[in-house]
Amino acid sequence: MQDDIRRVVIVGAGLLGASVGLGLKAAGFLADDAEIVGVGRTRATLDAAVAGRGIDRGVLELGEAVGGVEGKLIVVVAVPVGKFGEVFRQLAEHQRRGMVVTDVGSTKLSVVADAKRYLKQPQFFVPAHPMAGSEQSGPEAARGDLFRGRPCVLCPMGETDDAALAAVTAMWQALGATLFTMTADDHDHQVAAVSHLPHLVAVLLAHTADDMGPLDLASSGFRDTCRLAMSNPEMRRDIVMANRKPIGEALDRLASRLNELRGMVRKGKDVELLDLFTDAQVIRREWEASREES
Amino acid sequence: MQDDIRRVVIVGAGLLGASVGLGLKAAGFLADDAEIVGVGRTRATLDAAVAGRGIDRGVLELGEAVGGVEGKLIVVVAVPVGKFGEVFRQLAEHQRRGMVVTDVGSTKLSVVADAKRYLKQPQFFVPAHPMAGSEQSGPEAARGDLFRGRPCVLCPMGETDDAALAAVTAMWQALGATLFTMTADDHDHQVAAVSHLPHLVAVLLAHTADDMGPLDLASSGFRDTCRLAMSNPEMRRDIVMANRKPIGEALDRLASRLNELRGMVRKGKDVELLDLFTDAQVIRREWEASREES
Repeated sequence: MQDDIRRVVIVGAGLLGASVGLGLKAAGFLADDAEIVGVGRTRATLDAAVAGRGIDRGVLELGEAVGGVEGKLIVVVAVPVGKFGEVFRQLAEHQRRGMVVTDVGSTKLSVVADAKRYLKQPQFFVPAHPMAGSEQSGPEAARGDLFRGRPCVLCPMGETDDAALAAVTAMWQALGATLFTMTADDHDHQVAAVSHLPHLVAVLLAHTADDMGPLDLASSGFRDTCRLAMSNPEMRRDIVMANRKPIGEALDRLASRLNELRGMVRKGKDVELLDLFTDAQVIRREWEASREES
Repeated sequence: MQDDIRRVVIVGAGLLGASVGLGLKAAGFLADDAEIVGVGRTRATLDAAVAGRGIDRGVLELGEAVGGVEGKLIVVVAVPVGKFGEVFRQLAEHQRRGMVVTDVGSTKLSVVADAKRYLKQPQFFVPAHPMAGSEQSGPEAARGDLFRGRPCVLCPMGETDDAALAAVTAMWQALGATLFTMTADDHDHQVAAVSHLPHLVAVLLAHTADDMGPLDLASSGFRDTCRLAMSNPEMRRDIVMANRKPIGEALDRLASRLNELRGMVRKGKDVELLDLFTDAQVIRREWEASREES
């Protein structure tokens, strides 16, 4: 338990935000008299998050959420990455010693740039990205174990305060995440490949299959391979716009792999096809085995 | 119950073959004194299928499996599509009135060509493709409900015998599949888009992500989107080789969709990206809704 933290403020009480709240409660992270306050744009979302016990109470104003409390608090920014500038600008007015800020955004260079631009004390911001999510959204889909066993990347900046980093580290450990630390640049390249690319591949598959004709015969393979196409389109658009360069590189490499495959199919290169499929099976299996060990 | 069917012979007692056996038993499709005989290349696979109750007994010779029985029998060919020619050639020697042949192969034009080339009485062959499977394989993974609620395509040829078609239709109905009837050509085009393409997309994703660097941060999105990369490589190679032309068309269309997306990302076309993602979400959701209705 972190006795000294008096409040956790969750800005954006959706799937991720409400799951942070539920997880912290389940872990007994806060003292009994500390509280979790959600900030949202609509009363309905906040009420749903309170009903689901992801937050103790919800307010519409960020100032109200972070005010009226002495001692330490953690502010978790859990809004779409396109909204970070706006949240940081509001937050800047209320920054004070003891207020640690972190986030759950899917890109990190853009978030760091927003933090440096808008926050008055960017040293108290610890960029974080838990690799968890769902094609679902909203506080109704929240789960206290959403982050358990999942990777969570911390991208401390040169100026990041040690105590702030320690507080955020303790929070993600309490949520059961497997922590990685790397630069924002490395993060953005790696997630372009393992997170953003799967989403785009799912979108491309849905469109291409639909271009080809009826989907009546589609079964579990189609279902799983393009499950991510059901993700929130606005959130997806924001992520792509915030991480364009690494995603562009990933798509270029996909195009080169696709052209190689088209050549093999056109020319009936059975030996090369078998090698390609065997190698892909090894990559996928070894990744799964490495996850089970960790 | 189909009292007149004295035996079902399953050639290839792997995941699909053993699941046919389990499902027919669960459905009470056969009379108590009829039996399900498996044909395999190794004693170990046959023993595993018997242990899992997918077949009553297993033999290594096709002639032994179809011999010594009076009256009707159904032979289900459940070997990889690259092996159909060999099986049909052996089967041709034993064909007789009352012996209905069907299959579970993933492509149909190649299977029909093999049937016309090798079978002495192709009119008793009813081409079928149940759209079920798994990245697993072998009789240990078999399940009696594998085909329940899944699409199964029948591709009767011009010369197909009515009674043979009726027997195979009854069998797939007993297994709980949703039946579709179309030409082998239409089948091959549709499955190239909704079944073979997802597999290839999964393979491309595994390779591209691996090309880009470590997979430490990969999570549930990567896991599901490239789950199919774990499929059996030889089976996958056979399917692609047997359905090259429609798969080539699907890959061309994927390349055109990919180039469109690369342009949007490079130029930062946020409005077009949002449209693309929204449309993909609609396609995937409407498909899921149509499946739930059926």
